[in-house]
Amino acid sequence: MKIAILPGDGIGPEITKQAVNVLNALGERFEMEEAPVGGAGYAAHGHPLPEGTLKLAKEADAVLFGAVGDFKYDTLERALRPEQAILGLRKELGLFGNLRPAILYPELAGASTLKPEVVSGLDILIVRELTGDIYFGKPRGVRECPDGPFKGEREGFDTMRYAESEIRRIAHVAFQAARKRSKRVTSVDKANVLETFQFWRDIVTDVHKEYADVELDHMYVDNAAMQLVRAPKKFDVIVTGNMFGDILSDCAAMLTGSIGMLPSASLDANNKGLHEPSHGSAPDIAGKGIANPLATILSAAMMLRYSLGKAEQADRIESAVKTVLAQGLRTPDIYEPGTSKVGTEDMGAAVVAALR
Amino acid sequence: MKIAILPGDGIGPEITKQAVNVLNALGERFEMEEAPVGGAGYAAHGHPLPEGTLKLAKEADAVLFGAVGDFKYDTLERALRPEQAILGLRKELGLFGNLRPAILYPELAGASTLKPEVVSGLDILIVRELTGDIYFGKPRGVRECPDGPFKGEREGFDTMRYAESEIRRIAHVAFQAARKRSKRVTSVDKANVLETFQFWRDIVTDVHKEYADVELDHMYVDNAAMQLVRAPKKFDVIVTGNMFGDILSDCAAMLTGSIGMLPSASLDANNKGLHEPSHGSAPDIAGKGIANPLATILSAAMMLRYSLGKAEQADRIESAVKTVLAQGLRTPDIYEPGTSKVGTEDMGAAVVAALR
Ligand SMILES: CC(C)[C@H](C(=O)O)[C@@H](O)C(=O)O
Ligand SMILES: CC(C)[C@H](C(=O)O)[C@@H](O)C(=O)O
Repeated sequence: MKIAILPGDGIGPEITKQAVNVLNALGERFEMEEAPVGGAGYAAHGHPLPEGTLKLAKEADAVLFGAVGDFKYDTLERALRPEQAILGLRKELGLFGNLRPAILYPELAGASTLKPEVVSGLDILIVRELTGDIYFGKPRGVRECPDGPFKGEREGFDTMRYAESEIRRIAHVAFQAARKRSKRVTSVDKANVLETFQFWRDIVTDVHKEYADVELDHMYVDNAAMQLVRAPKKFDVIVTGNMFGDILSDCAAMLTGSIGMLPSASLDANNKGLHEPSHGSAPDIAGKGIANPLATILSAAMMLRYSLGKAEQADRIESAVKTVLAQGLRTPDIYEPGTSKVGTEDMGAAVVAALR
Repeated sequence: MKIAILPGDGIGPEITKQAVNVLNALGERFEMEEAPVGGAGYAAHGHPLPEGTLKLAKEADAVLFGAVGDFKYDTLERALRPEQAILGLRKELGLFGNLRPAILYPELAGASTLKPEVVSGLDILIVRELTGDIYFGKPRGVRECPDGPFKGEREGFDTMRYAESEIRRIAHVAFQAARKRSKRVTSVDKANVLETFQFWRDIVTDVHKEYADVELDHMYVDNAAMQLVRAPKKFDVIVTGNMFGDILSDCAAMLTGSIGMLPSASLDANNKGLHEPSHGSAPDIAGKGIANPLATILSAAMMLRYSLGKAEQADRIESAVKTVLAQGLRTPDIYEPGTSKVGTEDMGAAVVAALR
């Protein structure tokens, strides 16, 4: 099985290296090939998603992705900026199903800004649609305003769109994921204002007919943002569009206070996927050896489970991560007095040791 | 001066009544006229925003609005549902500038789900654009998908749009508000993905040239949702578009844990405005006499300050509200052991007494 390793920028290379070490320690045979992406892609080949990198990602059975973005690329024109690589990979690989767990490990309950009783034991799965919505919808641009009170002025515009089968397939992902959990799906929309999301609500309701064993409720996105802060543990699976999912998944991740722990998977129709930590490239701490590699290591576990059909090996990694937490090992982002502060390499090595 | 009183549905009438009592206790002469809106508008005249109600709102110098929505109107077609009245009033009255403070009163710090050190003393002002963006942008609807991989299927679609002068005027509102506060504005956008919000960022940056005394920074909306949970006190004024503002202002309100305390103002170019509590119509507790009238009373204060040019009277109301909190009076939504639980009428009466 072939895995494309795309370390990216900032802390990307350091954390990806630890995840690769963990994969190598499983005693399986993986073919791994590395390629530059994001700022590193631009630096090497003049484009954040170089042709060779895209080709490798397409050929591979799965992609392990670090993180992209660095201050030095901030002044590039938008089409060349690092994050365009992520958007490009999602679109080119058809990665429409984004799974983003927000889990609070009991040992890390203190890291949250929320009161322990509100978040301890938190375990939400956000299913975000990732190739549609206003992210890619055309037409878009800056033009002369064609009508209304501002006719003749310049205006920026974008198009939000969801076709029926795009909604159906992400709804199936959510209902199927819920079956393996607490069997409750909350579909988040803005059906009271947007045509796109009234349509979304209608289609999700229709798909739900095939899942009588799963509970479905609908919630407006503004209310969902409130309920995530008020009583996050009431959620099981949240399914929503690309734009709302971007906002809500980051909000949910931050509820845990330990975003350095959260993996993600972005899957196509055949469960081939790109797996990356939920956090960013943190260029301010790059190269210091203090970044938390656990989100990337757990992303490798998601890769094994979802894309490579190796659930048992995924379980092994996840247990090893629990073991190192129980041992009291903490990178600085999750450190608390009374625990042992370690760096990126030592944390990775501890997971490898715990695997054995 | 003429004030249109639109009580609406659910707890709307009870809480509006207390705000009217407070206005009457100021010793000023206001002409107040009441009209049905939302479900009550539909029940009386077959439309959530009856013609007579709209006419009254247009004629008046300011509108005091309760809340709309009730279970019994949930099955109506969208154009007739209560919340269409809010959208209609915003559009018809040109209320583009929405001011939504998120303030945590020291006495109520315990009500938040966040740790006291994270939220005590919280005082954010969210400036949300309210008549543009994807809320009103055309074209929109459900159609046969015209292109791309889903061509021929049904699809829902909406248009996000912002014209230059729409962005300019809301940016001015934000910078001017910041001048009366800590002089810091965070403009929230999604310039890395949306053309509309790259344009937004460019225009806000340009308007900022007129406000050298105010600090401006730009933040992506997903990061803003995270920072609101992580370190909300770092914000002073947040300015953003209609859609992002809907989500972030509710998130920020919930950080306080006491959404029953939060007023809002929606202003036109001449500061004429509609003033309403940030919370909803809570039909489940309507008529029980337990709703918190303070957000509506504080909305009346915002009305005096912003729309009627009576800052001194606004101050008097705000002090009176602080007095009743200091007296330990609490409606059930903000009750804690050791305080005195009171109902809607008693809370309103206590504010009137404190005014004198
Ligand atoms: C970098 C950006 C384009 C991206 C997004 O908005 O989807 C990121 O925020 C994410 O959530 O993966
Ligand atoms: C009721 C709804 C249309 C409205 C909005 O989305 O603007 C509400 O959520 C608000 O924030 O005032």
